[in-house]
Amino acid sequence: MKQLGKHIILELWGCENQALDDQPGIEKMLVDAVKACGATLICVKTHKFSPQGVTGVAVLSESHISIHTWPELGYAAMDVFTCGEHVAPHDTIPEIQKFLKPEKIDVMDIKRGIIEVDEVKE
Amino acid sequence: MKQLGKHIILELWGCENQALDDQPGIEKMLVDAVKACGATLICVKTHKFSPQGVTGVAVLSESHISIHTWPELGYAAMDVFTCGEHVAPHDTIPEIQKFLKPEKIDVMDIKRGIIEVDEVKE
Repeated sequence: MKQLGKHIILELWGCENQALDDQPGIEKMLVDAVKACGATLICVKTHKFSPQGVTGVAVLSESHISIHTWPELGYAAMDVFTCGEHVAPHDTIPEIQKFLKPEKIDVMDIKRGIIEVDEVKE
Repeated sequence: MKQLGKHIILELWGCENQALDDQPGIEKMLVDAVKACGATLICVKTHKFSPQGVTGVAVLSESHISIHTWPELGYAAMDVFTCGEHVAPHDTIPEIQKFLKPEKIDVMDIKRGIIEVDEVKE
């Protein structure tokens, strides 16, 4: 068995409200997270909502990282989806913690694209 | 209890190989899927890999839709993450089926941002 993609789902609670509404800060955090996990950035796009909230997506050569924030609730939903053996999605977590300062993180690991592999080839 | 986000994870197997490698087609499928679920598109970004494979992300006012394809395996990994009561992520599935023609779809529903809500306010 082999998984084509590693996908971690992060539920971040008790984050700093100001950080959750800081569009340039979130963009920098995404870029730093991409570097931290050894991925290659294709492009990053962030959007600021009125009155509050930020959405951001980093498109990677190895899939994507996304964030959606609710500053009024101290909550952010993040996904780190990577493919390739050289990228470790969990390595993004310290960069995320440094910027958002969550009190609590729930992490769910999802194996994407599970395929049977010829044992001889493994 | 209330969920801030509805997130569906789609594992699409046995898709048409040509469709999985068709960057303009995938971009159109994403835009059609956004319309189908009643969301508002902020921007769409797709990227074609060499020798094959496409990554695409639609950034929405209500979160995002993403796709990563492996044409050589007939496989695509998609995520449809929406917030707001007016958007129904499952409504994207017919548009996705129409274009990728998967033989099999696994759908995983994930409730994002589960919060306690004052019963009086509900």
